[in-house]
Formats: sequence, structure tokens, C-alpha cells
Amino acid sequence: MQRMAKSISLVEKERAVRRIQTISLKSIHDFFFEEGFEQLLPIILSPITDPLGPDPSSSVIKTGEIEYQGQKLQLTQSMILHKQIAIGMGIDKLFIISPNVRLEEARQQETGIHAFEFSQVDFEIKEATMEEIFELMEKLLNQIISKVKQMAKEELKLLERDLFQFITPFPRYTSHELENKYGSDWEKLASEEAKTPFFVTCHKREFYDKLDRSIEGEHYLNYDLYYPEGFLEALSGAIREHEYEHIRSRIEKDGLNIKTYEKFLERAKNGKIHSSAGGGFGVERLVRFLTGVDHISEVQVFERIPGRKVEV
Amino acid sequence: MQRMAKSISLVEKERAVRRIQTISLKSIHDFFFEEGFEQLLPIILSPITDPLGPDPSSSVIKTGEIEYQGQKLQLTQSMILHKQIAIGMGIDKLFIISPNVRLEEARQQETGIHAFEFSQVDFEIKEATMEEIFELMEKLLNQIISKVKQMAKEELKLLERDLFQFITPFPRYTSHELENKYGSDWEKLASEEAKTPFFVTCHKREFYDKLDRSIEGEHYLNYDLYYPEGFLEALSGAIREHEYEHIRSRIEKDGLNIKTYEKFLERAKNGKIHSSAGGGFGVERLVRFLTGVDHISEVQVFERIPGRKVEV
Repeated sequence: MQRMAKSISLVEKERAVRRIQTISLKSIHDFFFEEGFEQLLPIILSPITDPLGPDPSSSVIKTGEIEYQGQKLQLTQSMILHKQIAIGMGIDKLFIISPNVRLEEARQQETGIHAFEFSQVDFEIKEATMEEIFELMEKLLNQIISKVKQMAKEELKLLERDLFQFITPFPRYTSHELENKYGSDWEKLASEEAKTPFFVTCHKREFYDKLDRSIEGEHYLNYDLYYPEGFLEALSGAIREHEYEHIRSRIEKDGLNIKTYEKFLERAKNGKIHSSAGGGFGVERLVRFLTGVDHISEVQVFERIPGRKVEV
Repeated sequence: MQRMAKSISLVEKERAVRRIQTISLKSIHDFFFEEGFEQLLPIILSPITDPLGPDPSSSVIKTGEIEYQGQKLQLTQSMILHKQIAIGMGIDKLFIISPNVRLEEARQQETGIHAFEFSQVDFEIKEATMEEIFELMEKLLNQIISKVKQMAKEELKLLERDLFQFITPFPRYTSHELENKYGSDWEKLASEEAKTPFFVTCHKREFYDKLDRSIEGEHYLNYDLYYPEGFLEALSGAIREHEYEHIRSRIEKDGLNIKTYEKFLERAKNGKIHSSAGGGFGVERLVRFLTGVDHISEVQVFERIPGRKVEV
């Protein structure tokens, strides 16, 4: 939102976007509190973080790293592994709002949904099913929309944004169905055509997303939620791998360094990683959808867009 | 909270601490929302951050830094300069909950209140007075205590912690008064002796805290809030310097590199930095006070203590 010579209406629009962000954040806290989740505080530096790979669509060029007290510490790319560790500590339902740093390639500025820093709402539930997570997200999204409609009438009008609660359940597809229908660019095409959010299951992803071993072939017990009207990806989540042998073989198959995940694997070996499911959704992408603005930069007071110089 | 062979009562105590943290965070969001603050999202990487100096008590050994897109970006030590920039963008009342990274010397583990990563609640109000900030903090602290007493009765009992709302206004002292009374170790001694939180004004601090130019000598329009019973510092805040010449001469006097703050100074020159006041308080220190535990490590699910190896 760093522009010179702003017109009055641009200032008003930015204020409206921020108001809708404030209401959304309040609504997210209310929801998880009422649902009995414990709120954990984010960490930024850790010996391990989400590897974000070998997802073929990953465009992160490197993981931020610093040295302190003789230890190499990585900047948080997501709280996924720490959520699993927390579940293993006996925290059965948790959420964390954490900045995620993902040093993306410059070309990612074109997508409209990539920032190299953003705030992610990460939640996880011990022994949850996919269906439980879907229903939770449906309830949360409709509750946020209801609160925004009620408390930001003027702002929505100014932004010329019509919002309404969505009929539940949201449609559920597999990635294979959508790929068959739309081809390789299915994410964009399916989101553009949709009038309601929808879940898509089964994506080839990181080692912590559970492989479906009950059926033939390579299938995953994971999911994304997509916004309609071309607003693209809202949330990623999964049932998690929790058995030592499974995690170990997945890390090896991904060509990651086993040594990096030694302590995590040790926890799994000692029964300290449990079956869980959850997800994470970006606050800025949520606000972009709610406000209907074009680019994620219009939601960030302090713009953090790949390929653009950081001014403040 | 990383211990081996936990007894049941330790697990219960940790759960009680986390419950009180969850209630506190909910209460903080409710409060700022009701008071009409806009909630901004934190950033972790920026060309500038709080220099945390030349405070003679500062024990931070270095500022975390990474390179991305050919730019050197520093890890957030506090959101202070970004709060001032946001006020200059027309955001009149704001709060941000952000991880602060402060790479402390190992000896700081002894204080019981230092973590090298923690979550700070940073708020700022355009053209506010010190008294307005004091009253806001009094109201907030009593509101959190009231909510915790009401919603965590069992947890407080388990922790053997008596909490009660404090009579307002909290006492206000100057640092000079307390130094005269207690000597150079006044912070610790005054906090230990106190039965109620208290404000202390006038501390030699960073360039962004306003110098009191209405009186003789070196005095500052800034303040700290201290917890009673030896729980030490709760909040730091100030009226801010906002005039170009003042900021520039303060940066020079502190021996900081003017070039680093070039764009910030440019904003001030263009009237984009306004008079404001605010403060920041650490969530972990607040929870330590509310729960009465000895060391900040007992509040952190993922311990981040100077001098201790990071396990997860």
C-alpha cells in the first residue's frame, strides 16, 4: 500500500481493507477460543522448519538462516512441525498465528497471492479426521463473513464487495477429478468458475502429509480449500504421518537430509508424534478474498512482495 | 517446558499456564477491538528495526540479518519504527502482536524474564499523552486479571496463585526518585517491595523516545510499567520524537549510522511522522506474572532462553 500522492478514495479504501482485517482477526480469535483451542505463541527461529518441498510448484529460493549461540537457526516457513511436536506434548487442540517467511522467486509477484512474509493461522487437532477439519473451516469462514457483513457494512459498500454466507457442505473434489476436467491449470480455472469455496483432496506434498496406504497408487490424505471467483488457494492441510518408519521413509524419498530431522524422528520413535490433522490459512489471502481487492499487496500495510524492493 | 519424565502435576501445571495464556490473548484482542484500535499484522524482515540502544543495560549481542533480493533485511527487534510509520500513514490507533527476536548474551538466562524470542503486544496512538497510555494499561491489566479470575479459577488454584484487580491509578514515580531511594538496583528492589504495579518515568533510552525539552537537564518523556512482587518490567513506552531535526540529532548523538535511517528521516522531513505515544508489553512476561511461575521458560512451550541450546 506504498503509493505516492494517494487520492482520498484510495485512503478510504485502505482503511476499509484494514477494518475488515481487524474484524477478521477478532473473529478468528473468538472462534478458536469458543471451540476450545489453546493459543500458542509463534516462534521465528528453530533448528527445523517446514521444508516446503519437494512440492514441484514450490518457488521458494532459499530458507532464511542465522547463527546464534553456535547453532544454525532457520526462519519459520510454517509452524507445521512445531504443531506436531505440541500435539505430542499433550496439547490436543491448538492454534498459532505466526509470520511465515518464504523467500519466493521474483516471478511470484504476478500471482497476486504471494508475499514473502505473511501471517498464517495454523491449527491442529489430535486424531481428527478430514471431515472434522472441513466442517470446522466451513463454520469458521461463514462466521467471519457473518461478522464482517454485520460490522463493516459501509466498508463493503465502499469496496463494492458483495459477501454472503456459503451453503455447507462446500463441494469436495479430488485433484485428479479437477485435473481431468480442467487440465494442468486446474487450480486457477476451477477457482475462477466456482461460486462457492471448495475442498480439493490428494496433492503430492511434503513428508508430513499422510500417504493413503489403503489404496493402490500414490494418494495423499491431504487437502486444500480454494476461494471462489478466482481468489485461489485459501488453506492447506492434511492428516499427518505420525509413525517413525513412515516419516523416515518419506523424508528419504524426498531426498531431504535425515540428520536435519533427527530429533523430530527421535520423538516419533518414542511415540511422541501422534496422529493429527489440521491446516493453515493466510490472513492476507483471507482479507483479499473478503475485500475483493486484486493483489495481496493491497492488503499489506508493509508490502512484502517478491521482486519488489522493501521500502519500510 | 522441555523436561524429561514429567510428573502428572507438572503436566497439569503447564496446562494451567497455557490456559491462562489463551485467556490473556483473547482478553487482549477483545480489549483493543472494543477500544477501536486497528490490528496490523507483524513483519519480521525489514531494512530497519529497533536499534535497542544505546541503552546501557542492553545485552543484545547482534541483530539477526539475512539477504534477499540483494537487500539486507534485519529481524524485528520491536515494531516501534513501523508503528510510527503506520501512524504517519493515517492509522491513528493501532496494535500489533509480533515476535521480537533479541539475540541476548547467555548471562541473561539468570534474570528469569529474558527470552531471545518472545511475543510483544505493541500499540500506539496518535497525539496521545502519557496519562492516556497509563490509564489504558491500567484498564487493560485489570480487565485481563478479571477475565482470568473468572475463567481460570481451577488453574489459579492449582498454581496456588492469588490474583486480584489493582486499585487505580497505579503509583507513578520517576526513575530518579527510585534510584535515590533504592540505589542502582532500584528496578529489582522496587518491584520486590511493591504490592501493586507502578509506572516509572524518565529513562535514558533510544532516539525515538522524546526528550523533555521543557526542563533543564537530560530528561525523557518515557515510562516503564513494573509488575509487583519482583516480577519486574511489564511494559516500555514513550511519547515519540517526531520532528526531523530532533530525530536526526538524537540518532547522531547515539552514534548510530544516519544512512540506515535515511528513509525514516525522509518521512519525518515530509511531515509523515506525527507525535504519538504507546508502548509494548511481552505476552510471556504477562503470563509469568499472572501465573506466578519462577522463570519465563516455564511459560514458553518452545523454550527460547539465552545460553540454552534450542531443542525444537
